Amino acid sequence: MNDKAGGDAVETTNIISVTFPVRYSECDPLGIAHHSSYVIWFEEARHEYMRRHPADYAQLAEEGVFMPLSELRVRYRAPARFGDIITVRSWMSEVKSRRAIFYHQVLRADAREALAEGESVHICFDVKTLELKKIPPRVRALLERYLQEPGK
Amino acid sequence: MNDKAGGDAVETTNIISVTFPVRYSECDPLGIAHHSSYVIWFEEARHEYMRRHPADYAQLAEEGVFMPLSELRVRYRAPARFGDIITVRSWMSEVKSRRAIFYHQVLRADAREALAEGESVHICFDVKTLELKKIPPRVRALLERYLQEPGK
Amino acid sequence: MNDKAGGDAVETTNIISVTFPVRYSECDPLGIAHHSSYVIWFEEARHEYMRRHPADYAQLAEEGVFMPLSELRVRYRAPARFGDIITVRSWMSEVKSRRAIFYHQVLRADAREALAEGESVHICFDVKTLELKKIPPRVRALLERYLQEPGK
Amino acid sequence: MNDKAGGDAVETTNIISVTFPVRYSECDPLGIAHHSSYVIWFEEARHEYMRRHPADYAQLAEEGVFMPLSELRVRYRAPARFGDIITVRSWMSEVKSRRAIFYHQVLRADAREALAEGESVHICFDVKTLELKKIPPRVRALLERYLQEPGK
Repeated sequence: MNDKAGGDAVETTNIISVTFPVRYSECDPLGIAHHSSYVIWFEEARHEYMRRHPADYAQLAEEGVFMPLSELRVRYRAPARFGDIITVRSWMSEVKSRRAIFYHQVLRADAREALAEGESVHICFDVKTLELKKIPPRVRALLERYLQEPGK
Repeated sequence: MNDKAGGDAVETTNIISVTFPVRYSECDPLGIAHHSSYVIWFEEARHEYMRRHPADYAQLAEEGVFMPLSELRVRYRAPARFGDIITVRSWMSEVKSRRAIFYHQVLRADAREALAEGESVHICFDVKTLELKKIPPRVRALLERYLQEPGK
Repeated sequence: MNDKAGGDAVETTNIISVTFPVRYSECDPLGIAHHSSYVIWFEEARHEYMRRHPADYAQLAEEGVFMPLSELRVRYRAPARFGDIITVRSWMSEVKSRRAIFYHQVLRADAREALAEGESVHICFDVKTLELKKIPPRVRALLERYLQEPGK
Repeated sequence: MNDKAGGDAVETTNIISVTFPVRYSECDPLGIAHHSSYVIWFEEARHEYMRRHPADYAQLAEEGVFMPLSELRVRYRAPARFGDIITVRSWMSEVKSRRAIFYHQVLRADAREALAEGESVHICFDVKTLELKKIPPRVRALLERYLQEPGK
């Protein structure tokens, strides 16, 4: 799903976008999407990464690590309303020795301005010992392939 | 939590009741609890059974069975609103060779009439083979101890 | 979205189908979609009707009525798992003087057998008086256009 | 609900705490509370403020303003599991001319260390014009009464 007019192929593979309608059950008494819905939508974009790069995620398992969410930040700009078709765009914005950060934008599918944006910070645990550890070099190299400049 | 003034001890142990406020995130654009919330509340009453009768549920595990939900029915009478404190009352209404039925009522904590009511039907599977089977006699005897006349 | 190979045009317009992945946040500790998720998915199929037939729903408003859910029934056959792409198919299965019933099926998008099926029963209220009433003749005629034989 | 043994009265009124079990439907395939659940729990603590200080919130309405969430931050420390009884503690950590910040902690009810913590930032809108504005002096004075030192 290439949502960047004129974008080149390399950049495009680094940005995931998923599009779906705001569900009625996600809307609150003000008729707008409840703020917790954005957190779920962010995650759907991350899981779309997993669906598209199954080999990469298999490698995570081979290395014996998993990378749970350790921090979440959301900035709300304008409400998503019931009936809106929204697009979540997500990319890797930072990879360091001990953490990787996904950036997320929520847009109305027909608009260019974000309704909300935010980051999810992921850290690295050993599957067996459940101890925090550095991201293994091969996993880090893999994550770095998806790095994208913010705002693109 | 004895919610039956004058109720006798035997009956009281057979009715579970849980009480909590309607969450804002559970309310829809009409300002009333979304119909899916009742399904979650029913389950909270069933899990309260598990919390109160841990030995009985351990026996389920010993017998090598689990009893998932196979059918759900809800009848909506009047809306629960944000700010309402609601009580869910639940009891076992039927135990047969192959299924057990929990009955559930949702009431405003200060009222006697149900906002909604419904049943969850549970069937029996072998944990290892994942095959449908009859409820083992010891489990059935155990479930029958919690049988309660409807409407009580 | 015509999901019926060889289906004729008339039937197809009467069946709504929506397709989406099972969300991670919808899955429970067993790794399968929580039973309340199906209730939300059913509603998404009904709202897809509204999105496709805006004129019809405008007429509902003109007649001064709304048709909330009064009853819900779900029969669970097999679990939907995280990663499954599911399709919800929905059609009007009954229209009577005082109620209309939507039928819903949840299928894995690549399969023919339903994971779950169920009905939502809708009754008719006057928007102003909030009193229960018969479905107005023009609304009933409109709903009857979407009637579909069960199992199709 | 005084959760601070030996706490003095003034401090106690500034900290709201709500306690409830982790719901089964809130848990994900890892058997732990999904990260979006914490966002909902934070909000429940804020709404408990509203339930306890109805007069203050009435004044917000009188001033013709509302204070929606503009930013959310959550730091996850350790998982909440199904069956855990958790307590959310919340207080006002900052009041400035244009924003107020609620601080939230999620703890197991029987423990002293936080499973998660975070902030919700609230800004001020005119109910009629829907324009961003400074927090009116009377509202600001009211919010400042609930200020609490972080970590208390």
